[in-house]
Formats: sequence, structure tokens, C-alpha cells
Amino acid sequence: MSQRVANFFSDLRRRQQLLLPVWFEDGQVIILDQTRLPFQEHHLALRHVNEVAVAIKAMQIRGSGAIALAGAWGLYLAALTNQSTPEQIKEAGDLLKKTRPTAVNLQKTIDEITRELEPFQGEALTRTVEDRVLAIVQRQLDFEIRLGHFGAQVIGDGDTILTHCHSGALAGAGYGGRALSVLRAAVEQGKRVKVIASETRPYLQGARITAWELGQLGIPVTLITDNMSGFVLQRGMADLILVGSDRVAANGDLANKVGTYLLALAARDNDVPFYTATSSHTIDLSTPSGKEIAVEMRDPREVLLFNGAPIAPESTGAIYPSFDITPAELISGIITERGVLRPPYREKLAWLGSERETR
Amino acid sequence: MSQRVANFFSDLRRRQQLLLPVWFEDGQVIILDQTRLPFQEHHLALRHVNEVAVAIKAMQIRGSGAIALAGAWGLYLAALTNQSTPEQIKEAGDLLKKTRPTAVNLQKTIDEITRELEPFQGEALTRTVEDRVLAIVQRQLDFEIRLGHFGAQVIGDGDTILTHCHSGALAGAGYGGRALSVLRAAVEQGKRVKVIASETRPYLQGARITAWELGQLGIPVTLITDNMSGFVLQRGMADLILVGSDRVAANGDLANKVGTYLLALAARDNDVPFYTATSSHTIDLSTPSGKEIAVEMRDPREVLLFNGAPIAPESTGAIYPSFDITPAELISGIITERGVLRPPYREKLAWLGSERETR
Repeated sequence: MSQRVANFFSDLRRRQQLLLPVWFEDGQVIILDQTRLPFQEHHLALRHVNEVAVAIKAMQIRGSGAIALAGAWGLYLAALTNQSTPEQIKEAGDLLKKTRPTAVNLQKTIDEITRELEPFQGEALTRTVEDRVLAIVQRQLDFEIRLGHFGAQVIGDGDTILTHCHSGALAGAGYGGRALSVLRAAVEQGKRVKVIASETRPYLQGARITAWELGQLGIPVTLITDNMSGFVLQRGMADLILVGSDRVAANGDLANKVGTYLLALAARDNDVPFYTATSSHTIDLSTPSGKEIAVEMRDPREVLLFNGAPIAPESTGAIYPSFDITPAELISGIITERGVLRPPYREKLAWLGSERETR
Repeated sequence: MSQRVANFFSDLRRRQQLLLPVWFEDGQVIILDQTRLPFQEHHLALRHVNEVAVAIKAMQIRGSGAIALAGAWGLYLAALTNQSTPEQIKEAGDLLKKTRPTAVNLQKTIDEITRELEPFQGEALTRTVEDRVLAIVQRQLDFEIRLGHFGAQVIGDGDTILTHCHSGALAGAGYGGRALSVLRAAVEQGKRVKVIASETRPYLQGARITAWELGQLGIPVTLITDNMSGFVLQRGMADLILVGSDRVAANGDLANKVGTYLLALAARDNDVPFYTATSSHTIDLSTPSGKEIAVEMRDPREVLLFNGAPIAPESTGAIYPSFDITPAELISGIITERGVLRPPYREKLAWLGSERETR
């Protein structure tokens, strides 16, 4: 049975250079340890679902798509265990769901794999889980390739793209996640692109992970600190802005990594188009606008440290909002796997969101 | 003679709690080593003008006001040397001017002290230099206190002020430099204030120096990364923005630490007033607008390193623009030592700039 999984990955790799955040090989789940990037390409080889849960919790794999896939492969490990029962797989799923309780994609993926397993046992049970896991991986890859295909139309030959944080292959299934799928598809169409990446304090996803991925793909990348994007746009050094998004409200307001809103303001002030690459599944029709999105506040100690070393006097307070809200009127287009939406967004989002629900 | 200098400083300190970046004591120039802040309050005791030059070059003292004063005290050391001649003091001045060739304030201060010294020798020469140095220190302190007095009118009781980079006492004569003189004067008027400071990558002046000074003054400070200011303003967490400025053009456009422009854009979008605290001497009537201001590009390696350790893959490029341009239309008021200018700025700046020239 594992032979089929092995063939699946060798087929994938033959087709194109993928940057896989997680895969299955020789009875083990292999995870590229993102906490060691960009200086070490260290892989974890995990033999038990518990180890997968630990790796997700420790952020050794991160990004909503990637952790969902890690969870899926964790369940596959559980299903491969001799004489595992549907109940045991369900328990493994519960363990995995607890690692990142707010990660919607992970929760949904676990539910999709563990639903209605009761009729199966033995080989049929393993086979059912394997079918579901492979379908999910393939669907995520297909999503990224379609998203890239539609998004590449906004990229011109010779463009310099300013991006923020990390919305790439290691956060998805390995093609390019969201924003970087668009760049990758543009490159595959023969367009020459360059990237300016903001480092993205406090976790430095831009400096560590986006810059690493672009380096792997041979796309030239220039790093800036988060306060330099205004200068870059004032000087005409970027042709467009392209970021991911965590959530899109019914009116087109989007939530994304803190700092995105500042980029969008500077883009408007300098007549530079601002795009987000996202999934139709991030459209949340139950949230009327950005005002209703609760912003997760993370541990403020991360702001007071840089690479683990304190940077401010002990008496200093801090806050760490994980994202901010970019109003719809600052967004030139919302790139999805179904096409590029242009403003006004409300009706198009309603259609896409309801289409998705009934699919 | 040194007794007079000693009295000068003890008088100063009796009047108010100063945060002196540099002073003179027991025949030595004492400099608070800013490269060790905020974790060590280490003072350098310098006995020769050459040592002062080394400290300025090594950024152990920084900020346009502070390095001008360090240069002045360096000349005083030269003048105290037995049998020093006007020519030797001029040579010491040339040495000091070379430490930071683009620092206009330092150049002007050295020229002011070393001009027309030829008629003097011996005690009279030392006394003349001492007179000039003390007058310059006193003038800079008076400037800060007047600037604070005028600026404090824009601060309300209970306000939270968002600031960027460092525009404080250690960059000036010890009262509060520019932006922090305004906060300090407001506090002395009995107003309660809080500060949100952005860390200001890559050099982290906000985290290291602004947070330290505010801690010394007992003003509560909350640190954010440079990408979080948009969130802070969206959530109504700041009542006004207050920053320094490196240069003000004839139309009111200002050059200040990179990232200032993003703050100003977010301020306008959220109806939060944006103020700069500056000196009438930074008004440059020969520069029509911000477009004509050349932005100094610094060593890009500073963006790629933190505390000497790389943060991005080796193949990554970088740029390091030291400031950006904030257009006059985003500025609610320009605080100077002559009063607060409100838009439109052109005629008021022309008057203030020409007044200054003829004084």
C-alpha cells in the first residue's frame, strides 16, 4: 500500500520542482523543520502520530495548509498501525486537533478523514484513510496550481513584486502555497520577476522562509525591514504588492499578517496595485466586515526579543497583534482558485462563498 | 576654570533631572555609551580630543545635537592642554569634523567655536573656548525647553502618543531632544501621558534608547514592531503621533527615519493627528520639496544581520534607506522652538527660515 504513496510522491516530483513541507517515505512522515530555516535544511523522520503532534505544536511545521497535511499524514501513520480501529484513528485525530486549536484547516481536514470510518477495519480501513489523505494532498496541490494560473495574469514580464510575511510552498502543499504560487506560475509562463520581501517582525517569516523559498526557485529577492515599504513605493521600486490572507469578510475587507494594512495604504498613495492571493475557503460570509474580525493577540514577549535576545529595558511593555485589517477599498483584486475578483466585491464574494458551500 | 564648568553642570542637575549624553567632569569628557544601552549604563571617561573623535565615529554617542556637543567638549579638552595654540584647536576641530562628515550640526558647532581664535593665547584662549562651549550647551538646552513648552499644547491629559525611532534627550543636550522634550514638558505641566514606541529596525533605536529614556523619566512605554502601527491606529489605541525630523523642505515635506511616512499615512486614514518636533534650523529653504531630498543609503548588511548574526539566506540582497519622505499634506503641525506651525506651511516656513538667517 505504501508503494502507492511512494509512487504518488515520485510522480509529483517528476512533474515539477516542489518544495514539500511534509511527505511520506519508508513508513515515516518526513517534515522539513521550519524552525531551522534558512540556515539548516533539517528533516524530521516521524514514526508515530504523537511525534507529528509534537512537531506541529513546536511550529516545526507551520502555515495553515501545511499543518493540515501534516495532520493528515499523522492519521495515516495511525492507520498503518497493526489492527488499528476507527476509534483509535478518531482518538489520534483528537490529539492532532488539540495541537493548534484555532487552525480551522487542520480541524476540517481531520474531520474529513475520520468521518464515517466505522464500517471499515483492517486493510480496508487503512486503504480508506490512504485514499482520503492522497485526495486531500492532491486537492491542495491542484488548488495551488489553479490559483497560480489565475493569479499570474496580474504579473507583467519584468515586474518587481513586494510581498510581506510568508505565503508560500512550505505553508501549503509544496507548489507555492498562495502568494508564491502566483509568482511561480508567472515564472513558468516565461515572465521574469523579482521580489522585495519585508522581514516580518517579530517572527521574521519574510527573512527566513520567503527568502529561502525564493532562493530555492532562483527568483532574486531583496530584503527590507518592515518600515521600508513606504520608501520602496515612493521611489517606484515595486510594480505591485502581493500578499496572502487569513480571512476575507463578506465586504472584501481582509485580515492578514500585521503590517499588511500599512502596505495597502502606501500602495494607494503611490498608485501601485495591491493584490491578495487566497482560497475561496477563506471567504467568511458570516463576517460582514473587517470590524467584526477578532484579532488574535499573541505573547508580547516575542516583541521584546529578537532571535531570543532581549532588545528593550525590562520595564518596557509590549503588544503582539498577529494581524491587521485591510479595508476592501484598498484592494485592487482578490486572487482565488476560481479567478481574480475585482471590486466591488460584495456580490462576487457572496456568489463564490455560497457556490463553495453547496459544492 | 574647570570649577565654573563643574558649577554649570551641578546647577543644571539641581534644576531638573537631565539625561545628559555628554558632560565634563574632573578634566574629562564623560560620554554615556549608547551602544551598550539599554542593558548597561556604561560611561566613557575621555582625556584627549582624539578619544572623543573615536567615540563619535563608533556611534557611542549619536544624534545630531549630542554629537555636536561632544565635539564642543572635545575642543574644550584641546584648549585645556598646556600651551595649546589657536592653530592646534583648529586642527582638533578638523579631526572632529571628519568623524561624521554629513552631520551639519557638528560642523557648524566646531566652526562656531574655532572661528577668530587668533587674537587669543594662554588662559584667554582657554577661557574663550570655554565661554563658547558653555554658551552652546546652554543654548541647546534652552532650545529643548522652549520646544517642549510650545509643543506641549498639542498633548492632552491622558493621551497615548505613538512615536518612532529616537528623538530624545540622548540625541540632544539632555532635557528631551526634540520629540521627547514635548512629552517631558507635558508631564511637567501635570499631564499624564503614555507612549507606544516602534522598535525601529534595523538599529532598534526605539526599543533600545527611546524605551530606556522613557523608563528613566517614569513614562509608561509599550513596544511594538514597526509593522504594528496600523493596527494600533485602527484600534484607536493612540491619540497622536509625534516624531522628530532630519530635514523640513520649503513646502513642509519632511525627511525622517524610514517608516515615518507609513505612520503618517495610517494617521490620516484613522483621523489621528501627526506632529513633528523639530528645530527652525532643520528648515531648508533651498530644498523646494521632499522630491529634491537625496535619501542616504546605508550599508545593506545591517538589514541582513541582527547582533552580528545573519537572519536570511546568503543569496538574499537588501537595501537600507535611512529615511523616507512624509508629504506636508499628512502633517497636522510642525512644532518648533518658535511655536507650532499649522498648514499651509510654505509662507510660515519661509518667514521662520529667513528670520533665522538674519538673527
